Amino acid sequence: MSSSIPDSAVRTYIDHHRDGFLAELSEWLRIPSVSADPDRAPDVRRSAEWLAAKLTATGFPVAEVWETPGAPAVYAEWPSGDPDAPTVLVYGHHDVQPAAREDGWRTDPFEPEVVDGKLYARGAADDKGQVFFHTLGVRAHLAATGRTAPAVNLKLLIEGEEESGSPHFPDLIQRHAARLACDAVIVSDTGMWSKDVPTVCTGMRGLTDCQVDLYGPDQDIHSGSFGGAVPNPATEAARLVAALHDEDRRVTVPGFYDGVVPLTDEERELFAELPFDEAEWLRTAHSHATLGEAGHTTLERLWARPTAEVNGIGGGYQGPGGKTIVPSSARLKLSFRLVAGQDAGKVEQSFRDWVAARLPEGIRHEITFWGATRPCLTPLGHPALQSVVRAMGRAFGGKIRFTREGGSGPAADLQDVLGVPVLFLGISIPSDGWHAPNEKVELDLLMKGVETAAYLWGDLAENWRTA
Amino acid sequence: MSSSIPDSAVRTYIDHHRDGFLAELSEWLRIPSVSADPDRAPDVRRSAEWLAAKLTATGFPVAEVWETPGAPAVYAEWPSGDPDAPTVLVYGHHDVQPAAREDGWRTDPFEPEVVDGKLYARGAADDKGQVFFHTLGVRAHLAATGRTAPAVNLKLLIEGEEESGSPHFPDLIQRHAARLACDAVIVSDTGMWSKDVPTVCTGMRGLTDCQVDLYGPDQDIHSGSFGGAVPNPATEAARLVAALHDEDRRVTVPGFYDGVVPLTDEERELFAELPFDEAEWLRTAHSHATLGEAGHTTLERLWARPTAEVNGIGGGYQGPGGKTIVPSSARLKLSFRLVAGQDAGKVEQSFRDWVAARLPEGIRHEITFWGATRPCLTPLGHPALQSVVRAMGRAFGGKIRFTREGGSGPAADLQDVLGVPVLFLGISIPSDGWHAPNEKVELDLLMKGVETAAYLWGDLAENWRTA
Repeated sequence: MSSSIPDSAVRTYIDHHRDGFLAELSEWLRIPSVSADPDRAPDVRRSAEWLAAKLTATGFPVAEVWETPGAPAVYAEWPSGDPDAPTVLVYGHHDVQPAAREDGWRTDPFEPEVVDGKLYARGAADDKGQVFFHTLGVRAHLAATGRTAPAVNLKLLIEGEEESGSPHFPDLIQRHAARLACDAVIVSDTGMWSKDVPTVCTGMRGLTDCQVDLYGPDQDIHSGSFGGAVPNPATEAARLVAALHDEDRRVTVPGFYDGVVPLTDEERELFAELPFDEAEWLRTAHSHATLGEAGHTTLERLWARPTAEVNGIGGGYQGPGGKTIVPSSARLKLSFRLVAGQDAGKVEQSFRDWVAARLPEGIRHEITFWGATRPCLTPLGHPALQSVVRAMGRAFGGKIRFTREGGSGPAADLQDVLGVPVLFLGISIPSDGWHAPNEKVELDLLMKGVETAAYLWGDLAENWRTA
Repeated sequence: MSSSIPDSAVRTYIDHHRDGFLAELSEWLRIPSVSADPDRAPDVRRSAEWLAAKLTATGFPVAEVWETPGAPAVYAEWPSGDPDAPTVLVYGHHDVQPAAREDGWRTDPFEPEVVDGKLYARGAADDKGQVFFHTLGVRAHLAATGRTAPAVNLKLLIEGEEESGSPHFPDLIQRHAARLACDAVIVSDTGMWSKDVPTVCTGMRGLTDCQVDLYGPDQDIHSGSFGGAVPNPATEAARLVAALHDEDRRVTVPGFYDGVVPLTDEERELFAELPFDEAEWLRTAHSHATLGEAGHTTLERLWARPTAEVNGIGGGYQGPGGKTIVPSSARLKLSFRLVAGQDAGKVEQSFRDWVAARLPEGIRHEITFWGATRPCLTPLGHPALQSVVRAMGRAFGGKIRFTREGGSGPAADLQDVLGVPVLFLGISIPSDGWHAPNEKVELDLLMKGVETAAYLWGDLAENWRTA
């Protein structure tokens, strides 16, 4: 199954172009493309234009800036020329999280600096570094194979609002669905287990979240004059939250687990192979104990089990000291993480029915769902996943293990709209500090990303017949 | 048992002095003695000085302004001269709630106006009107009996910070305990059932309230990356609240009901005699249904049963839209209304133990109690209570029924520090609008208050041997 492209040719090419590649990436990282900051909108646009020009220079015959009502995305394509070749769409984003020196950065977040083999800058790992390794990757692929076009039909979609919640992304991909048509999506916006344990992510959880407003008395009322004889919306909000889970911390909403794809024994074993250190994980979680659904390990809870989480709760008096009232209203912010097989619409309806049946007379309620993100899961046996694993194995020189992500992302929109599997190719590691001060990418891992991308297109074309 | 003072003499005296009495009360009501407003501190002082001067003019040989670290109180005494006479301390307050025309007042809140037999002004009912009826009351008592001093040793303590939570009151009465020594306290700061159903209040609930802080992760963490695998302090706060009550809405904290004086059949019958209209009461409560401890009526729940109430709950994200976090902390404001027989200290300790035993590993907590107010309850057979009932019966000309108050007040401090029973003599009615715009007192009821006070001292001296 090993590809016919000689690894040494790829490595030689990459080594030769490494300095120029890093210089260009640094140029891009200097553009503060913070999508959440309206003052940075011109920078986000400059970032898109910079990338489109760079993709043209890389050789993509098509490289366009795509407008949205918000920040622009970048689209590029490079047809293979081979009518039987699979079509792959790489997804990433060119916008970054806010960053300021005073947040605790030891260097200017928008002046990249290499220290000890690590490139420090906002966006180094999330996500400019991981987008950019595809430019040198495809050049290395061509150089090593002598091709003038990639072995697959290569498309790139690099959005500009991921760090702002991708508000226009679903609409963007719906409008351009015909041009985005592909056989698989490769998301380069995730990470690996660790530097020494290279992994491929095989799925993300979905998400649906909502606000529940509970209304009791028409105004705050005196807890002495009326307390103990009328329903209290803060109490009822708390009773809803408490009833969401049973003593085994399983979600009690009827039908919540309907359709959940159970972990196979193989998957549980693969999770268990990972060198999970609970004490270290708790430090990452800033938490002091684990707690979750009975019968599952922490990794299973995070990656393969759906949850109901309280993101916020509020009602009545929250200032200093006491105030003896029965509050007139209370509010819950709840999010449900979903896993493959669950239907967000059914979960939402079950939750609505469950709430309506639980509240006492005298408590009026409203539930607002903000919109759902679907879960995605790549079957372990999928040929494109096997190509990713082989390409990484050649680049990293060891066994590639499997992880999932507990979070949710716009990748699921691509899966839904385009109707194709989503795969993940990321080389970032937990210590890279996404969204935190002193974000960095490790240069040797970044170059492994380039190398993986260089092997991947040939392997895919060779081993995956999509017709 | 009817007193030897002729009722007609009392009524004639009151009718003759009614206009002057109302003019003086109006003068007092024009002083905006809002204790919560630092800018009004000079007005609160002016109110105290005005009252002390007026009590001197009434005939009290002692009338003093008592300083506190906050607003001043007024103390007056008028010895009976009879060594066997009981000593009675009247409690009220001369400060008022804030009020402004733009809150919905149809008249200037500090420019009293009589419309349709009702005197509109801030403090008309709460509490200047009810304090002031004692001035004309004692004059009528003397005039009708031909005495030069009251039949009881009469003391008045009129505080200046009741509407600000009486922060210095316990200290004040402790410092002056010797001078305040008495056989009973008469609180004139409550109300009656209605204009047509005159009542005596026989007790108030006590109160202890606290804040519970729960701490989970050291910072808000991502609900996708970590949710479902670590304890969530908002969830745990809600589970505490939900566990506070069982399905019968009884408080579940072990020992909470220890010592609770149960309602006798007679008391339940007396409560049931009151013309309680649930629909009307719900309008007063701004609520849309009743809910409370199983096996008790609404009045029993309010007056004779202890409660655990959520005054506030907060944790995590409460802004617009969603934010997918596991919050790092959550907070509860809880108040416990207590009834006779309960010990606030034991309730607090039981609650602390109960919380500590219920929280999972990884959730740290702190509980802060703000200090307790004891419940008070006058036994129905107490001779001083019977005197109050007889005096009211003569003034109102009908059967006097019994109520209690669900709220808590500084009266309990007097009971505790002075070690004597507390009785209630109030003529305000629910529609008087305490703390609300367009507060008023009904003039015919106010004059019944004067008349009751005129009968009371003679009846007490005649029928209550305290030695």
